[in-house]
Amino acid sequence: MIDLRSDTVTQPTTAMRQAMAQAVVGDDVYGEDKTVTKLEETAAQMLGKEAGLFVTSGTQGNQVAILTHTKRGEEVIVEADAHVFYYEVGAMAALGGLQTRPIAGERGMMPLTAMEEAIRPQNIHFPETGLICLENTHNRAGGTVLPLSYMQSVKELADRNHIPVHLDGARLFNAVVASGISAKEYAATVDSVQFCLSKGLAAPVGSVLVGTAEFIEKARKWRKMLGGGMRQAGVIAAPGLIALTQMVDRLADDHVRAKRLAQGLANIRGIVVDVDRVETNIVIADVRDSGLTPDEFLATLSECGVLAAGFGGTLVRFVTHVDITDDHIDETIAAAAFTTRMR
Amino acid sequence: MIDLRSDTVTQPTTAMRQAMAQAVVGDDVYGEDKTVTKLEETAAQMLGKEAGLFVTSGTQGNQVAILTHTKRGEEVIVEADAHVFYYEVGAMAALGGLQTRPIAGERGMMPLTAMEEAIRPQNIHFPETGLICLENTHNRAGGTVLPLSYMQSVKELADRNHIPVHLDGARLFNAVVASGISAKEYAATVDSVQFCLSKGLAAPVGSVLVGTAEFIEKARKWRKMLGGGMRQAGVIAAPGLIALTQMVDRLADDHVRAKRLAQGLANIRGIVVDVDRVETNIVIADVRDSGLTPDEFLATLSECGVLAAGFGGTLVRFVTHVDITDDHIDETIAAAAFTTRMR
Amino acid sequence: MIDLRSDTVTQPTTAMRQAMAQAVVGDDVYGEDKTVTKLEETAAQMLGKEAGLFVTSGTQGNQVAILTHTKRGEEVIVEADAHVFYYEVGAMAALGGLQTRPIAGERGMMPLTAMEEAIRPQNIHFPETGLICLENTHNRAGGTVLPLSYMQSVKELADRNHIPVHLDGARLFNAVVASGISAKEYAATVDSVQFCLSKGLAAPVGSVLVGTAEFIEKARKWRKMLGGGMRQAGVIAAPGLIALTQMVDRLADDHVRAKRLAQGLANIRGIVVDVDRVETNIVIADVRDSGLTPDEFLATLSECGVLAAGFGGTLVRFVTHVDITDDHIDETIAAAAFTTRMR
Amino acid sequence: MIDLRSDTVTQPTTAMRQAMAQAVVGDDVYGEDKTVTKLEETAAQMLGKEAGLFVTSGTQGNQVAILTHTKRGEEVIVEADAHVFYYEVGAMAALGGLQTRPIAGERGMMPLTAMEEAIRPQNIHFPETGLICLENTHNRAGGTVLPLSYMQSVKELADRNHIPVHLDGARLFNAVVASGISAKEYAATVDSVQFCLSKGLAAPVGSVLVGTAEFIEKARKWRKMLGGGMRQAGVIAAPGLIALTQMVDRLADDHVRAKRLAQGLANIRGIVVDVDRVETNIVIADVRDSGLTPDEFLATLSECGVLAAGFGGTLVRFVTHVDITDDHIDETIAAAAFTTRMR
Repeated sequence: MIDLRSDTVTQPTTAMRQAMAQAVVGDDVYGEDKTVTKLEETAAQMLGKEAGLFVTSGTQGNQVAILTHTKRGEEVIVEADAHVFYYEVGAMAALGGLQTRPIAGERGMMPLTAMEEAIRPQNIHFPETGLICLENTHNRAGGTVLPLSYMQSVKELADRNHIPVHLDGARLFNAVVASGISAKEYAATVDSVQFCLSKGLAAPVGSVLVGTAEFIEKARKWRKMLGGGMRQAGVIAAPGLIALTQMVDRLADDHVRAKRLAQGLANIRGIVVDVDRVETNIVIADVRDSGLTPDEFLATLSECGVLAAGFGGTLVRFVTHVDITDDHIDETIAAAAFTTRMR
Repeated sequence: MIDLRSDTVTQPTTAMRQAMAQAVVGDDVYGEDKTVTKLEETAAQMLGKEAGLFVTSGTQGNQVAILTHTKRGEEVIVEADAHVFYYEVGAMAALGGLQTRPIAGERGMMPLTAMEEAIRPQNIHFPETGLICLENTHNRAGGTVLPLSYMQSVKELADRNHIPVHLDGARLFNAVVASGISAKEYAATVDSVQFCLSKGLAAPVGSVLVGTAEFIEKARKWRKMLGGGMRQAGVIAAPGLIALTQMVDRLADDHVRAKRLAQGLANIRGIVVDVDRVETNIVIADVRDSGLTPDEFLATLSECGVLAAGFGGTLVRFVTHVDITDDHIDETIAAAAFTTRMR
Repeated sequence: MIDLRSDTVTQPTTAMRQAMAQAVVGDDVYGEDKTVTKLEETAAQMLGKEAGLFVTSGTQGNQVAILTHTKRGEEVIVEADAHVFYYEVGAMAALGGLQTRPIAGERGMMPLTAMEEAIRPQNIHFPETGLICLENTHNRAGGTVLPLSYMQSVKELADRNHIPVHLDGARLFNAVVASGISAKEYAATVDSVQFCLSKGLAAPVGSVLVGTAEFIEKARKWRKMLGGGMRQAGVIAAPGLIALTQMVDRLADDHVRAKRLAQGLANIRGIVVDVDRVETNIVIADVRDSGLTPDEFLATLSECGVLAAGFGGTLVRFVTHVDITDDHIDETIAAAAFTTRMR
Repeated sequence: MIDLRSDTVTQPTTAMRQAMAQAVVGDDVYGEDKTVTKLEETAAQMLGKEAGLFVTSGTQGNQVAILTHTKRGEEVIVEADAHVFYYEVGAMAALGGLQTRPIAGERGMMPLTAMEEAIRPQNIHFPETGLICLENTHNRAGGTVLPLSYMQSVKELADRNHIPVHLDGARLFNAVVASGISAKEYAATVDSVQFCLSKGLAAPVGSVLVGTAEFIEKARKWRKMLGGGMRQAGVIAAPGLIALTQMVDRLADDHVRAKRLAQGLANIRGIVVDVDRVETNIVIADVRDSGLTPDEFLATLSECGVLAAGFGGTLVRFVTHVDITDDHIDETIAAAAFTTRMR
């Protein structure tokens, strides 16, 4: 099967498997796993932050960051399609007692004026605004890249209102590769960043949260509460180190293939794709005009040997990654064309 | 001063004061306050529900209802300007661990298709949709009345998805008087209703929550947890009974006066009012074109002996109530005209 | 009926009823109810604190205080039979995300060494100790008075560990009258105090929370979240003022009657009372040796015209208050004697 | 260094490292990691439950179980020294809004009568009792084994009161080996069990939660919320499978060594050990009579090449495990003797 459902399906590389088998490990709850420590330090250095924390998923990294930044009863400004709001099981409210204040964005960017208006003034009826969350690249907007200048403007607005900013950078390195702006430059515009080792970078498990040393110290305790304190975690940090240091540049190939896939799909009658919006490795296709529901479309596509994912409404999502080749793109376009004709 | 900031400023009537002094009371935590019980039964009967619960505020009534309907970690669909989301200190998340899912409405009405899309399908990434909240009349929309047919459509949609509906009816009786539809008819379209005795109905303190007997039984315990279990509460339930049985019809006068105030304000250069939207006792005026900020506008207005309230952005809100006369309306229009000329 | 179930059943006095009818009131959410303000200031002054906050119940006062003192995820040290732990519906955990750390006390006093050991050192596995709660008089210990010296020792221990102390003083004025120590002296040993107007002091509804001005400012917002923000609340603050300024000294009578009741009950075969422990207005009787269950004992007692309350296990509680006379005590002893003989 | 601080410090075996490198993996969030599935099924089968869930730590397994069993605002009965209460950062309250009701046990066993009394009857002041937690072996009691008959009695009591029982079996296989009672027999007395692969069983990371299929289905979603949903988690499930199928029997050696260590330490003047209590791989030593604080004792011991851990008060804990040999025990006894003499 050609699996384009998500870049989370990537298999660990041979080098990663070897690294696991050979990793120097210790008890990380005691801070004695040298491989974990090396990963955390490497990540912090690459993002220009003081410290890092290895977590088991992007959701855990985001939620630990949110718990660390906020106090119960505060309000958090999020883009209306943000992963932290849409896909994290309502964790922010359930675990942190935080009210979400979603603002509809354009290509993942909340309008600055809308953000400014959403920040709560002093009033006994209002929760206090405790955090702003950004997402770069923005998954549900189609893997779009937040421009550095936008992030700087958000930071300026946030600073003026004494509100911290967290970046859900699950696919930050896709933004880095697509824009040519370094992770450090992006990270300089926010207080904390979570990025995933397990998506396009192909590590089997894990993400890293970075921020100030004081922030990470506190975050470590919230991670423990969520059950993210692991023992010989070096065995999964080791492939993470390879992901971080050797797998970034090749994301460019995924982007080229996504663009080509987008163009190919856009040429198929019944499929609508905003090709211009395909900036990284995600392609969103609207199958409304095909006369097929997404479920029907996906079922036939699957029979042709191609997996993609429903994305809400009449949308279907394709994600390119390390296990996808040029031939797979051709086959996918052919399968999609076949599927729409089959109706 | 002519106080148009809110209908919450109403003074108890002489009859209410006498009722307090003479109320038959007992320990309501033991269920032995006959005046409280009578109020709860009267309210339940008027709204066609099995049981009622006296609470100390609209916020308490709403939050107790929400806690009773939901489980931690669920998502609640609310209009983006709803009181439960905008003005209740983030209680839903802080106390209940519930994620808010706001949908922008028109005149307080969330589009049905948007609601349908917002209901979460089964998916491990999604919180479950646990409740829909409506507000009638809708404060921030300008005291607009939700049509009965709209509420019936919401109920149909909710039933189809097995989701309960709570009505924040803080000013439900304004809707009743404006529309000619009974409280019972409105209440039949939802699972629970909270309405206030202390706003237009002029009681000093309190609201009532109504629903099934089983629902109210559980709600009573959540009220206890919030500290709303009171002892000889009959002393405040007594004026509440007067509010409910004698003060409803006169709301029509408030509506007439609000309409006249709206028309008067709309004729003033620099003040924009959507007169058509003034269906009950709330008038929202936009002072942007006056060249004054709301704070400046309100300060001068206050020097003229009239109080109104800022309402976010460039908006100012006026609310008519039992202590406002026809003359007050004339004086308010004159004061507003003076204020805009003073610039 | 002679109602000794609790001092919460007290009826408001004639003076209180008049005060309600004549109270000067305003909208207290706007801070404009002069009677509420006067009550809050009077309470603060009597307890030597900067500010006060009127709340609708002892539970609300305690929980608002706890929410204000703590951060989510902290641990709170409480006596194992404390009202905040035993009788407040688990609010501390449900609303505040706080873990309770109960310590068994003697006459309501947790041993200092046990408290010291319970304070959490820095450790990634441990919640931080965020608050110590005391209760004076201590209800489940039998209305016992915490000595001032004990409270001073707790404060010294708490200060040394940078932990605030809250006093649940629901019946603090019983301790004041029994010990001759002023409310101000007691309050000086803690950071915040909640005391009830509605128990022995006979007001129909309400309690007051006192502390620093900054603390009360924050507490006011938590009260709003719980739905405790009321409008013309002066109508219930007015009797509260009478309770606070005119009803304290007479508590001495309740104490004398409770002692006499205790002695009378202790002389009845089948009833065990620790008379020495009866320091205020609460009498705990163990009916195990009567051969009756508490429910059976209470049922027969009730047929004799006397109400008391089950208190867990084989215990029964009697509470004296303003509506109980010397004759009532005689009748109660006779009824209890009759009840035990009836078996 | 001879590291007796905890059995969490165990290094993965060579077989485990090979298993990681060769594991068949997939995206476990999609349920497609065959190695994870095999581990979950193997665990469920060994414990006689319908389904299993791989989690990243004992804390995560316990907290996911607790969240799944309960509703916000309930009370949970726990032994006063239980890991879920003492060492899990207050998670139960912070994440679940649950009040802890600790009961002091003997050798980890809460007296049945105390449990019965702690179960809350129907009363508006009381939270509902939502769960009972047991721990076997019981860490802070000294690794003691809960007898099967005790667990059966707890289950009978719980069933009678319609309360589920969760077993924190972080070291359940130590109990199995020490008692000769199978994991299945123990598990039959409770509704859910969490056991660790990463302690005595030597896997690098992870635990498994087992229960009914319906329970695990719900638990999977709570795990996702805590960030425990992982992708190619087979790489850590693979060594977990080896831990579960090949590492259990050898725990007997750890027990023999712990007993010998206990006897050796007990013979040293200044060290008190209750040798009879050493049933598995944990030895608790009281160093009070040595004239050394635990910190001083541990510092000197460490200079002698032996690591142990402070355990609260004047206690020190030693834990035997796969990386500890007979010679290490001799050296540890010698080092402890030297340490006490050095004072």
